[in-house]
Amino acid sequence: MTRLRFQQSLDDLKEKLLVMAGMSEQAIQRAIEAYRTRDISICDLVVRSEMAINRLERSIDQMAIDILAMEQPTAIDLRFILAVIKINADLERVGDAAVTITERVRDLQVFQSVELPVDIQRMASLAAGMIRKSLQAFIEFDAELAQTVLTMDDSVDRLNENAFFALSNVMKQKPELTPQALNALMISRSLERVADHATNIAEDVIFWVRGADVRHYLSTNEAVRDRPGESDLH
Amino acid sequence: MTRLRFQQSLDDLKEKLLVMAGMSEQAIQRAIEAYRTRDISICDLVVRSEMAINRLERSIDQMAIDILAMEQPTAIDLRFILAVIKINADLERVGDAAVTITERVRDLQVFQSVELPVDIQRMASLAAGMIRKSLQAFIEFDAELAQTVLTMDDSVDRLNENAFFALSNVMKQKPELTPQALNALMISRSLERVADHATNIAEDVIFWVRGADVRHYLSTNEAVRDRPGESDLH
Repeated sequence: MTRLRFQQSLDDLKEKLLVMAGMSEQAIQRAIEAYRTRDISICDLVVRSEMAINRLERSIDQMAIDILAMEQPTAIDLRFILAVIKINADLERVGDAAVTITERVRDLQVFQSVELPVDIQRMASLAAGMIRKSLQAFIEFDAELAQTVLTMDDSVDRLNENAFFALSNVMKQKPELTPQALNALMISRSLERVADHATNIAEDVIFWVRGADVRHYLSTNEAVRDRPGESDLH
Repeated sequence: MTRLRFQQSLDDLKEKLLVMAGMSEQAIQRAIEAYRTRDISICDLVVRSEMAINRLERSIDQMAIDILAMEQPTAIDLRFILAVIKINADLERVGDAAVTITERVRDLQVFQSVELPVDIQRMASLAAGMIRKSLQAFIEFDAELAQTVLTMDDSVDRLNENAFFALSNVMKQKPELTPQALNALMISRSLERVADHATNIAEDVIFWVRGADVRHYLSTNEAVRDRPGESDLH
């Protein structure tokens, strides 16, 4: 494989990961839309898209493994591919979180819709924004942008803690609203989990970008075992 | 590096991952012990060990990357190292789940201990058993054993669903027990999360073992780019 074709396969991998990220983010937004509207048909859509996300996860993993096996890339490219594998796993679990949210929405069908002291919409848009930003940081090789994701995670954690206290008070004071409050609390927790996955991605980006700074160390070590003719093969 | 030294570095990696698994499992067991006894000093211990787990995670990742970069292993060894990287990430999150449980234990300090319709102890020993078995499956290259972990996950899911219904009923009927019931529900959920991580590990083992079956495909492709003298370097 030429260097050009190798670069192309890395670009394809990146492209696929972006599709994966878009699908995961959409799954969360749909799940929250289902919660807002109590529309079960949207829940079904989320479950179907989660299956597509799982298939895409396996396909990205396989592609990454194939590149590793056939190209044996070193230093910076190696770290890139490993970052893809890790980010991929986190995105798949964002899809899982979306399905978990739809399960709570289904639970809620038999109960009346009530006002609750929790801004699910705001948490969801923060969490979705974190997924988007962490992927943008990955694409743009931007550790500073990745750092802002970690700050956003603190906000989501705070919102989730507040939701926990406010909703447990609702349950204590109006036990008849327990199902609604409990499901809202679970959804808040799932969104906090999505934010955690975005944080994992951001940390991987930071690790990857910083790793690039130590590539001198790696290439020094690589040099020891450089083989004549290797450059022709890449 | 000789083949012997390469094999040694894979064994070292495996050994470190086993230490990581032992620490994660212990963190869960300690967190549940803290819940049972309401002993805050055990919570502190869990938090400290989580920091050690995080450090070990980074160190295993770095070791795996170094082996990949310097040895450029193919097919079966490559899949092994990738499995280590993925399992490592799951184990680290088991440590996170342990810390989450201790946060709930701290919350409970100001409330009276009460009997609740949930067998946290049983869920915890199932979840810890799943971690142990999935690692054993990894060590013994045993896809069938990994398969039993997936079945155990169904049991934990069922226990968690039952806990959800039973505890939300407690909250509805005895609102004064809401804090205790809610915290038990959150702990049950964290244990379900631990079981999910064990399931991820088991799935990685299955993927890895099955991947070994397709190594013929990989080595055929590898043969195309075999370089003279390469075997001397390994």
